[in-house]
Amino acid sequence: MTLLVHKYGGTSVGSVERINAVADRVAATHAEGIKVVVVVSAMSGETNRLVSLSNEFSGAPDPAFKDVMLSTGEQVTIGALAIALQARGVKATPLCGWQVPIQTDTIAGKARINHIGTERMLAALEADEVVIVAGFQGVNDKNQITTLGRGGSDTTAVALAAALKADECQIYTDVDGVYTSDPRVVTDACRLDRITFEEMLELASQGSKVLQIRSVEFAGKYKVPLRVLSSFSDGPGTLITLDEGEDMEQPVVSGIAFNRDEAKLTVRGVPDVPGAAYKILGPVGEANIEVDMIVQNVGADNTTDFTFTVHRADFEKARDILTRTAEALGAKSVGGDDRIAKVSVVGVGMRSHSNIASRAFKALGEEGINILMISTSEIKISLVVEEKYLELAVRALHSTFGLQDGPTTE
Amino acid sequence: MTLLVHKYGGTSVGSVERINAVADRVAATHAEGIKVVVVVSAMSGETNRLVSLSNEFSGAPDPAFKDVMLSTGEQVTIGALAIALQARGVKATPLCGWQVPIQTDTIAGKARINHIGTERMLAALEADEVVIVAGFQGVNDKNQITTLGRGGSDTTAVALAAALKADECQIYTDVDGVYTSDPRVVTDACRLDRITFEEMLELASQGSKVLQIRSVEFAGKYKVPLRVLSSFSDGPGTLITLDEGEDMEQPVVSGIAFNRDEAKLTVRGVPDVPGAAYKILGPVGEANIEVDMIVQNVGADNTTDFTFTVHRADFEKARDILTRTAEALGAKSVGGDDRIAKVSVVGVGMRSHSNIASRAFKALGEEGINILMISTSEIKISLVVEEKYLELAVRALHSTFGLQDGPTTE
Repeated sequence: MTLLVHKYGGTSVGSVERINAVADRVAATHAEGIKVVVVVSAMSGETNRLVSLSNEFSGAPDPAFKDVMLSTGEQVTIGALAIALQARGVKATPLCGWQVPIQTDTIAGKARINHIGTERMLAALEADEVVIVAGFQGVNDKNQITTLGRGGSDTTAVALAAALKADECQIYTDVDGVYTSDPRVVTDACRLDRITFEEMLELASQGSKVLQIRSVEFAGKYKVPLRVLSSFSDGPGTLITLDEGEDMEQPVVSGIAFNRDEAKLTVRGVPDVPGAAYKILGPVGEANIEVDMIVQNVGADNTTDFTFTVHRADFEKARDILTRTAEALGAKSVGGDDRIAKVSVVGVGMRSHSNIASRAFKALGEEGINILMISTSEIKISLVVEEKYLELAVRALHSTFGLQDGPTTE
Repeated sequence: MTLLVHKYGGTSVGSVERINAVADRVAATHAEGIKVVVVVSAMSGETNRLVSLSNEFSGAPDPAFKDVMLSTGEQVTIGALAIALQARGVKATPLCGWQVPIQTDTIAGKARINHIGTERMLAALEADEVVIVAGFQGVNDKNQITTLGRGGSDTTAVALAAALKADECQIYTDVDGVYTSDPRVVTDACRLDRITFEEMLELASQGSKVLQIRSVEFAGKYKVPLRVLSSFSDGPGTLITLDEGEDMEQPVVSGIAFNRDEAKLTVRGVPDVPGAAYKILGPVGEANIEVDMIVQNVGADNTTDFTFTVHRADFEKARDILTRTAEALGAKSVGGDDRIAKVSVVGVGMRSHSNIASRAFKALGEEGINILMISTSEIKISLVVEEKYLELAVRALHSTFGLQDGPTTE
């Protein structure tokens, strides 16, 4: 018998009407004889309201106490959806994280799931009930409420699907799938029928914010077929799988991702000795600044130029640290630019196609766009350009790989 | 070492300012070296908001699902108060009903407490922490969230005080104690320093709505000293005890209670045979109509007149039932009046004073108020009068027993 996990985010349960629409969809699935476990978020706006309230009492509220407050948002939704299903003649079992139980570590505010008990859910499913689970929350071994951090409801859904060996984990959102690029920038972007976990991770971490990255990693690790689809309309959505599609032609390029929120820093004339990279990046990491791309060129005079990118918000802080490090290392100078953006060409087929990079360079060159940094992985080529060229670069790449007609198969 | 249970209702935690005021009071108590367990309600308005939301999905939401939603109100407050105490340098352990645990039966929406686990609370108190418990909620043996019904936070507080053998259970409200009568009606009503559980029950059930009746019964049963006091001002409040005050002069009359919400029904000329009372009141009770006062007079012609009072809202329904019963019994007629009110003189000292009733009758007679029904118990005399005379009757009785100077000791 088919078992599906449905997950509905804050927008999808944002009003009485929306919750009723979710109940309609779940009831219809249940009526087909499919077993359903539904994971829900707090009604949109509710978590922010509770965060604001918690901040009224202290500038730095104890995360464990905050978790007690925040976890109520999802709890209200599970009760509401259970009532909406009851009104449709469908029996339901609403469960908080501690009732499942979803056992987590003790790190309040961003706990990680250690174990999920399935007994209670399986008994309810066996009794033909729909199981409704509060997303984003768990319980630690001290019997304290924890939360998994923002977006954690996706992780809850995937973890439940893995624990229950569900046939598919369906993430209902306000978009109808994963696209070859952001439709707001590329008007002829195409919905992808399927995509691999690796590609999805690259697209997600590059700024296609459809799913929480952690939930995709989790789904990949536990081989849970994941599908992104719209709660506002019908449609097949996008299936995210391990399977690279043996039967079908391998897409070379699946999509063009981009990220505006970047800044780059360069230290020039670093004496090229072992450990230089660590000496440069160590202090940056210790300051909790995330480093994204790293490029190093060795020059002729036994010195090296070292460039890396950080979140734009960390730019000033990173430059101050780098200036001190550069002095200590006897480097020549420090430079930076916080008006840059990153564009990435993503596709598993790149593994076996060597000319993708040159085609990307050519496309940007033809538009007169200068490439400031290049970084490649097996399934991705990332290019840093001046921010003002971002949209032009995305459209040029999308078009050069023919993505308006779907993924390039060559 | 002293252990106190504090309970703060919805108005007392109705805003950020009010929660901070509660934190100030709790922190000050803790600073005196007193162990404190705090029971809190939902912020005022929150429970009503959640009830409304639950009713949006069904005309008759499953009480168990409703409990899942309603219990979040108190959960938000325990987190908020824990953060407010943290900001004052006081360590706290916030606990939901299931975390304490407060074990209840399975009757959703009005569960009764079966057992309270004290281990976790005692460990926290031992570690010099303030324990904060969500009122109004518990968990049943199926690990489902239950609520105790409206006003259930008072019951939670008393039950915790009993389980922990606390020195006192202090109920903080928006009034500064129990009064000899309602100050809105009797301007010179006096705060009582102390009152017995029995008197409090009579006052509460007669309409002095300071405490939930169930919590007073509970406190009496488990001998928990209960104190009602104001969360908005300082003051000793009113102590409610088992002790009738051996050292002090026994008050004869403690207060004048009243209730507007009454209606009376009379069936006349009922053949006076055994079982007639049951035949009259049985069908009323089966219709879930609560009967308050009952008076029966046997006449000379072997028939009897039978009068009883019900909630005004049940008047029409009760009259319809009674009309059918009267026909079946061969009674002469049915009459009724829904413009009546009840006034009660309450005091434990009445047990040993026989002239209280006649003094009450005299006081009303002097004001020209006709008494429609009389009912007495060991510590109470209840009089039904026309509704329009209610305030006059209450003031006349309050004055005749000299309550403006405190309880009458004779």
